[in-house]
Amino acid sequence: MDHGLLAPAWAATGVAELVDDRALLTAMLDTEVALAGAQAALGMIGPGDLASIREAAVVNRIDLAVLAAGVRATGNPVVALVDQLTAAVDPDAAGSVHLGCTSQDVLDTALMLLCAKVFDRIAADLAECARLLAEHVARHQDTPMAARTLTLHAVPTTFGLKAAGWLHLVLDAAVRVRAARAALPVSIGGAAGTLSAYREYAPATGPADRVLRLPALVARELGLPEPAVPWHAIRTPIADVASALLVTTGALGKIAADALVLGRTEIGEVAEAPRPGRGVSSAMPQKRNPVFSTLVATAARQLPPTAAVLFASMAVEDERSAGGWHAEWQPLRECLRVAGGAAANAVELVRSLRVSPERLAANLALTGGALVCERVNAVPAPLLGKAAAKRVLAEAERDGRPLPEVPARRVPGAGLGAADYAKLLDPADYTGVAATPARRVLDRHDAEGAR
Amino acid sequence: MDHGLLAPAWAATGVAELVDDRALLTAMLDTEVALAGAQAALGMIGPGDLASIREAAVVNRIDLAVLAAGVRATGNPVVALVDQLTAAVDPDAAGSVHLGCTSQDVLDTALMLLCAKVFDRIAADLAECARLLAEHVARHQDTPMAARTLTLHAVPTTFGLKAAGWLHLVLDAAVRVRAARAALPVSIGGAAGTLSAYREYAPATGPADRVLRLPALVARELGLPEPAVPWHAIRTPIADVASALLVTTGALGKIAADALVLGRTEIGEVAEAPRPGRGVSSAMPQKRNPVFSTLVATAARQLPPTAAVLFASMAVEDERSAGGWHAEWQPLRECLRVAGGAAANAVELVRSLRVSPERLAANLALTGGALVCERVNAVPAPLLGKAAAKRVLAEAERDGRPLPEVPARRVPGAGLGAADYAKLLDPADYTGVAATPARRVLDRHDAEGAR
Amino acid sequence: MDHGLLAPAWAATGVAELVDDRALLTAMLDTEVALAGAQAALGMIGPGDLASIREAAVVNRIDLAVLAAGVRATGNPVVALVDQLTAAVDPDAAGSVHLGCTSQDVLDTALMLLCAKVFDRIAADLAECARLLAEHVARHQDTPMAARTLTLHAVPTTFGLKAAGWLHLVLDAAVRVRAARAALPVSIGGAAGTLSAYREYAPATGPADRVLRLPALVARELGLPEPAVPWHAIRTPIADVASALLVTTGALGKIAADALVLGRTEIGEVAEAPRPGRGVSSAMPQKRNPVFSTLVATAARQLPPTAAVLFASMAVEDERSAGGWHAEWQPLRECLRVAGGAAANAVELVRSLRVSPERLAANLALTGGALVCERVNAVPAPLLGKAAAKRVLAEAERDGRPLPEVPARRVPGAGLGAADYAKLLDPADYTGVAATPARRVLDRHDAEGAR
Amino acid sequence: MDHGLLAPAWAATGVAELVDDRALLTAMLDTEVALAGAQAALGMIGPGDLASIREAAVVNRIDLAVLAAGVRATGNPVVALVDQLTAAVDPDAAGSVHLGCTSQDVLDTALMLLCAKVFDRIAADLAECARLLAEHVARHQDTPMAARTLTLHAVPTTFGLKAAGWLHLVLDAAVRVRAARAALPVSIGGAAGTLSAYREYAPATGPADRVLRLPALVARELGLPEPAVPWHAIRTPIADVASALLVTTGALGKIAADALVLGRTEIGEVAEAPRPGRGVSSAMPQKRNPVFSTLVATAARQLPPTAAVLFASMAVEDERSAGGWHAEWQPLRECLRVAGGAAANAVELVRSLRVSPERLAANLALTGGALVCERVNAVPAPLLGKAAAKRVLAEAERDGRPLPEVPARRVPGAGLGAADYAKLLDPADYTGVAATPARRVLDRHDAEGAR
Repeated sequence: MDHGLLAPAWAATGVAELVDDRALLTAMLDTEVALAGAQAALGMIGPGDLASIREAAVVNRIDLAVLAAGVRATGNPVVALVDQLTAAVDPDAAGSVHLGCTSQDVLDTALMLLCAKVFDRIAADLAECARLLAEHVARHQDTPMAARTLTLHAVPTTFGLKAAGWLHLVLDAAVRVRAARAALPVSIGGAAGTLSAYREYAPATGPADRVLRLPALVARELGLPEPAVPWHAIRTPIADVASALLVTTGALGKIAADALVLGRTEIGEVAEAPRPGRGVSSAMPQKRNPVFSTLVATAARQLPPTAAVLFASMAVEDERSAGGWHAEWQPLRECLRVAGGAAANAVELVRSLRVSPERLAANLALTGGALVCERVNAVPAPLLGKAAAKRVLAEAERDGRPLPEVPARRVPGAGLGAADYAKLLDPADYTGVAATPARRVLDRHDAEGAR
Repeated sequence: MDHGLLAPAWAATGVAELVDDRALLTAMLDTEVALAGAQAALGMIGPGDLASIREAAVVNRIDLAVLAAGVRATGNPVVALVDQLTAAVDPDAAGSVHLGCTSQDVLDTALMLLCAKVFDRIAADLAECARLLAEHVARHQDTPMAARTLTLHAVPTTFGLKAAGWLHLVLDAAVRVRAARAALPVSIGGAAGTLSAYREYAPATGPADRVLRLPALVARELGLPEPAVPWHAIRTPIADVASALLVTTGALGKIAADALVLGRTEIGEVAEAPRPGRGVSSAMPQKRNPVFSTLVATAARQLPPTAAVLFASMAVEDERSAGGWHAEWQPLRECLRVAGGAAANAVELVRSLRVSPERLAANLALTGGALVCERVNAVPAPLLGKAAAKRVLAEAERDGRPLPEVPARRVPGAGLGAADYAKLLDPADYTGVAATPARRVLDRHDAEGAR
Repeated sequence: MDHGLLAPAWAATGVAELVDDRALLTAMLDTEVALAGAQAALGMIGPGDLASIREAAVVNRIDLAVLAAGVRATGNPVVALVDQLTAAVDPDAAGSVHLGCTSQDVLDTALMLLCAKVFDRIAADLAECARLLAEHVARHQDTPMAARTLTLHAVPTTFGLKAAGWLHLVLDAAVRVRAARAALPVSIGGAAGTLSAYREYAPATGPADRVLRLPALVARELGLPEPAVPWHAIRTPIADVASALLVTTGALGKIAADALVLGRTEIGEVAEAPRPGRGVSSAMPQKRNPVFSTLVATAARQLPPTAAVLFASMAVEDERSAGGWHAEWQPLRECLRVAGGAAANAVELVRSLRVSPERLAANLALTGGALVCERVNAVPAPLLGKAAAKRVLAEAERDGRPLPEVPARRVPGAGLGAADYAKLLDPADYTGVAATPARRVLDRHDAEGAR
Repeated sequence: MDHGLLAPAWAATGVAELVDDRALLTAMLDTEVALAGAQAALGMIGPGDLASIREAAVVNRIDLAVLAAGVRATGNPVVALVDQLTAAVDPDAAGSVHLGCTSQDVLDTALMLLCAKVFDRIAADLAECARLLAEHVARHQDTPMAARTLTLHAVPTTFGLKAAGWLHLVLDAAVRVRAARAALPVSIGGAAGTLSAYREYAPATGPADRVLRLPALVARELGLPEPAVPWHAIRTPIADVASALLVTTGALGKIAADALVLGRTEIGEVAEAPRPGRGVSSAMPQKRNPVFSTLVATAARQLPPTAAVLFASMAVEDERSAGGWHAEWQPLRECLRVAGGAAANAVELVRSLRVSPERLAANLALTGGALVCERVNAVPAPLLGKAAAKRVLAEAERDGRPLPEVPARRVPGAGLGAADYAKLLDPADYTGVAATPARRVLDRHDAEGAR
């Protein structure tokens, strides 16, 4: 059994329980009951049969090990489930269990129910992440820090803009999660998408296409939409789930990647707030490892390849692929767990994130003005010419002199007074229009948070 | 040089030329010119400088090999491009080239331009695919065929429904391609997303935030939207491109997978129409290989792992990642080529697809009624009880007798006359409500094709 | 909890139990005991402490849920394990638990122990597969069948050669599995690979480098080799495991892919032998789905992307990566389960595989000689010239006449009598030297099976 | 055409030319000539025909664009190549071109020739990398530095041990590259692996199995081994190539990942030596980006997903898969380019790597002794008991006092004098047995370098 000892991406986040075998069983039983309910509404089975099915469809009556054996014997867990469920109902109702149905209808619908549960959890966690990040953005709109490109100090930016980028990503993810959640369809197609057996069991009286109402009725029972077409081998729904989860984990992984860099011993600009027992090492008493960042980074590394299986299973043969369909299930579950775990851990990461204004300032000052070289280059450029300014700066670097001193010396007529020059060299004065996109993202959060 | 000898996914489709180095160079030059145009509009550079830049920004003046060397020397092709462009403009205009800009702004914007071109091509090809498929759906709404699940005959379906599934997928892809196309943003952020250097070069008079109009102006020049935030390290746009391409190739790959199965020598239900030189083998004169299906299937196998790189590059450190950003470029190009090639080849696949009603009918009859076992099971079930009916059928199979004979014998009182029974056993009469989803997809095509 | 309801690749194969959380816990405890044993041998801890640790290291005394919570709190399950183990030993021995050790030493060593168990199981299953396949090869060395390329009949081959290819792949996999099994190292490096804390706890007397014997002693206790260097961030061992598993699943996946094609309703050349309950459908009583082929095909689809995570984690920063290391665990387990499940299911697939000589022969005759076109082309070619012969055949095909008739008519002077011609057209006479590689693979099996 | 503008992984390294379309064409022509040579040796074709084929098989006579069109028309470039080659030879020799051959024999053999060329280049670059790294190991065996785990200072190590880990990985890669290089087989199987058509063209006199010598003769002509079995659909050779390349790029990616971290502005322990034009930024004059590290890191990110396609193509149907085979080609080329480029760039990375002893020392001192906490914990542990010592250290951290001061105060009777204590706190004295594995790797390099 799997408690998550090898799954830092989701261990102890509560997400695994939403998609474990017991949860799947519940969802499969819910699907069988919803089907029976819809069929009773259409007069395909009697109310007594429905009652008997509903009563029998209890998780604890089903032996999961038998279902697992059934997976090996028949390729999916539904055949064995139907056998057990049939045995559990009143004998008179046996013929009404899983009536006209096919394994894939039950399993695909159940998987969509699991997706819905995890998506709801993720949506809530992303909303909380966003709320916490918005505070960081607001608080640090004017906190300058070194922007880094290709690992090196580049120019100044603000911590507010950095956090705004994180928030923007989280809002992007939330949009995609909400859209994917709303589109999760039930699967009611029968053996090959024609509803043929369902139709046989529809009552002889009445219009022949009464069965066409069946998918919508099942969908209503389960709170999911009706699909436009049977999708046993038309797998856009799975691809859309994958895309939404990928953006989620990618977005959160960006936050973790930044937090890991900024929290390095030598940088120290952020840290996860210590708590008893958190981040401790079995060997090194002084360490407080950035655990949540590590857990989220783990998720971000794992999801893209895992999700690739889901996209690959779009291109499958026949009305039900031998292997293409089956290959989706465990990776889909793993994607849900990993992305769900990432969202849960990202909340804790963002909540526990402590920013050190001292270290931000110290690092900003570390290179003695090199950070504003770009600006120094810019301001005298109209006077010196761009190429000449570039050469001057290159010389300065080669000679090891503090770069910003040079142009002033070389451009005596540039009309820059000492105070102008000092301002010019102040990284805190060179954050461009960082406040604008930060503000824009806060506005977006205000607008979308209300959804 | 790469003509596509190893790239069946896109060779000779004309897509590679949309994204090759020359096309990229064009797009980078377009970006530099658009930037200069926007800066001229803002008074950041003079009209003469703009004219000089526009005149110099000619593909043939730039040495691609020097740019490639620049990639190895500086990590991207823009530094060397700017050097060459600067050398090519009027010396007075040299200072106005790439003013305040950063390599990533140019390269990311250029890549979005390439995406736009390929997306437009894909959209057109998907529309043509859809049109051709709609004809198949309409023509074959009532053509029964064997549905296959896990490689075996399952129950009857119609070729119309099969084609409707393909069409639905193509429409799904088209929706995603259009949405992704419309969202491709320019990148105008400056060294670290603060527009800082751009701002320095903005004229001293006027409001300080005049530079805030710069991204929108560049976007207007290039016909792409302005981003909400600088996205150097906020990579949702790339993930969205990847998702749209994955759905495209997955959708088309489904068609190819089915065509390959249905065209097998023993099945023969479809074939790609022969043309001189097409599908010939170097060894076997009798063969007409299903080339377009093979080419599309190739694309569908290649895309998911290639696209995984793009999703992985969402989770990167800093304002510009060392390696995370760079790892996107070639896979992005390859994804565009592969998906674009798949769309081009899918048009030919669908256009050349010939359906054999004779083989459809012959295969439908192949199993002597086993295809309608489900129905036979269904109809007497109310009389026999489901479990009993199942046993009867199992016995029949074990004994090797034609299955459908059995229940009638066993259910003498079932009131089925000989004609009823013959109808019951006719696969063509057991296609359920296959016509309904097929009709629904045609309606969707009518509604969305007008876009 | 996970019984495998969504894991057709390994459900009910018994492999999951080799690597589940309980198995991992056992392996971690074995590692702690082996470490203590080695340290006792070196005089680092007393014999009483060793006895106490050995007595306390019992799976049932450890709470797996607490370990999972520890994963979220500290990033790995070892910190919480050490806490629980320390609490369980005699208080005097508490200081001797996990002495000088680091979490990664325990977890990596435990993972190698799990790999060893699964590799042993896979090796046995591959050996059985090979044995069964060798029977097929021997039995069908002279059974002609249609070879298929790009889904179409190409030329004749033999079922013996086809099975020989499968056997060759299985032997290839076995070689790689044995090599990888033999190379699985223990990890004994201490916090950063310098053995520094281990060394502190080594007795003051004696040579300072006594601690250097520690890894070899632990390795001997556990039956695994000593690594040449500490491999906390030197991950070749993991890559080698991945490679061996990929070849295993790829090899078995080839067998499954062929079995699925050859077992199609229209082809029918092979089938999985029916057994009660196996391959049944919840909807269609007539079906006997090719379950084992499907399960193995599932595994082959899932492994390559999952294993990609393991290769990606070679390129990680520092003495222990934040996320790179952690990302390996669950995919490694999944790779082991999937490949182990594939091996177990492949044994059943091969064991249950029934070959139909009738269908092989019928399909061979299906195209009326087109299968030997290549030969017809070859034999008159010296007389007609290759290009001319090609044209003749092309005409024949265009005209719809049986191809082989043509050349004889056109080449009256070719000196082919009617009997010669009949022989020439007999597919069974055109299997080339198929027997030779088949024989060679049997010889290889004889030679390597003895290992 | 593709100069590598989007391919930082291999641009301007010279590797792309080894596998571009022209190189492939050369290899295909070499294969056709080698086949003709072998067939002439067996008397299958005349010496004059061989001479004519050899003369005609000139790269410049073949139109690559026509071959690309042929890929789209026939699914591979060989059909069109054979047409062009046939047209170029003496008309009498036309019948001897590509005699009895199949497209896959030519293309697979040609691909193996390309693999051989790239593997040779990689082997040379790995050897040079190893040589340069061995110097680092030797020079820095006693240079202490901070080991980092989960981004934080852990305990001391040596730069020698870090470099030894890199060297070990490079030697691991070299072993795998050499093994894979030696095993690259030619493909001579004919249409379906039976050599059937080859056999038809073998002279009537002599033993019927003379054709069995054909593969070995072709292999000898091309300097590659003969395969044990026809491998059109038995793809272990491709999987082995992939594995070797993955270990190569993973190994080099580890070096790059470390170099990127250690070269961060705040850390500064290593840097790529500046050279004119290298690492410059288009915007920021002060920057010297770590270009080679970035290029290698790019390669390491790209390879694992790309290679996944190759492993997936093991599990393919039939004697030649429709799509499975074709999907290998471009990813195989890309894997070769990416890994080959990584090796070329890694040489420059390692060659240009400058180590700063000052920064190593400064960072080692940064945490005021926290780095040796583990040791402080170890030494008084026998006196205090492990748990008590842990508590003491935890208190110290909570109180913000320099950790190492505490235990001495608390353990007055521990018998540690001030000098003992100072030594205990000296990180340079706490590098464990780091020298031993470093020495071991140097020995390995000495032993294996001679190969």
